[in-house]
Amino acid sequence: MKKIITLLVAVFTMMTGFAQEKQDASQAVLDNIFARKSVRSYTDEAVSPEQVETLLKAAMAAPSGMNAQPWRFVVVREQATKDKLAVGFNKMIAKAPVVIVVCGKTKGKLGGENHNWTADCAAATENLLLAAEALGLGAVWTACYPYDDRMNPTIEALELPADVKPYCIVPVGHPAGKDKPKDKWKPENIHYEKW
Amino acid sequence: MKKIITLLVAVFTMMTGFAQEKQDASQAVLDNIFARKSVRSYTDEAVSPEQVETLLKAAMAAPSGMNAQPWRFVVVREQATKDKLAVGFNKMIAKAPVVIVVCGKTKGKLGGENHNWTADCAAATENLLLAAEALGLGAVWTACYPYDDRMNPTIEALELPADVKPYCIVPVGHPAGKDKPKDKWKPENIHYEKW
Repeated sequence: MKKIITLLVAVFTMMTGFAQEKQDASQAVLDNIFARKSVRSYTDEAVSPEQVETLLKAAMAAPSGMNAQPWRFVVVREQATKDKLAVGFNKMIAKAPVVIVVCGKTKGKLGGENHNWTADCAAATENLLLAAEALGLGAVWTACYPYDDRMNPTIEALELPADVKPYCIVPVGHPAGKDKPKDKWKPENIHYEKW
Repeated sequence: MKKIITLLVAVFTMMTGFAQEKQDASQAVLDNIFARKSVRSYTDEAVSPEQVETLLKAAMAAPSGMNAQPWRFVVVREQATKDKLAVGFNKMIAKAPVVIVVCGKTKGKLGGENHNWTADCAAATENLLLAAEALGLGAVWTACYPYDDRMNPTIEALELPADVKPYCIVPVGHPAGKDKPKDKWKPENIHYEKW
């Protein structure tokens, strides 16, 4: 009898342990979503190839229309190239240790337009930003598409083929400051059943 | 001396504890990104208003160009409305206990076109899907924009104003099956320095 009680207590403890772990993991995901912020200044500390790989694995885990996975990524560390990408008000691109350019194949397998490529690249970018936050890195989404004055220098600098467009540019580094996330919760942005 | 050693050991234990917790949280975020999958069949179990609120809080924590937050959400539970939204091959919309329509304001504050509204809605949608995964819910991104044959019935059913477009529709429920995430990691989608 004593043995059975001991066993039952052990099983119960294990089960509540699992439940607690699951709840902690769930909360960690939500906390990370709320903690993500745009980081525009970086220290000189390097971002390792392993960290970049984790970011890109997260990006490629995004959903894509018809599972086309139209995203392509160019990882840039050379200063001369970063300088070419840093056009207009996106000067921080030149100062980040690594820059990830999210690009998309604009045509489908059969040669027709893939109208989902921007959505898929955006989902991949958001995954990348959330993974960066989880790794303690700082990053920011700087738009490229649909602005010709940002896309053209990027296409030229990276020698992109005709059917690949740069969607956005994400500089990544270790945060130099103490950026805080914005509270953007607005119940007035929610409608029920109808507008 | 003994007291100092005891104190040092306590501080060290606490610090390694914190570090471990941080690493666990970081891994939980990545695990959730890799675990997210498109779920298209749902049980009859309800999704609570609190769960919907958590999903929408996550969605609104996404980044947006110039911090415009152009996203708007319509939460639909009425069967007649769900039936109207379930056009074409998106039949699962009619069968989900709750449907979230992600919409976007297409104009900026000064009345000009906001070219970032689709990117911002996409980032919000990805946050929503990741939060659903974390809560143990199942959801799927079904495209609306830029397809007129999907947008028009949605605009009509939800009575959206002229400057608000439906971006995508996300049915949410408790997973009925055992959907598995796809492994989409393809190193050949990464280029270094140039294409």
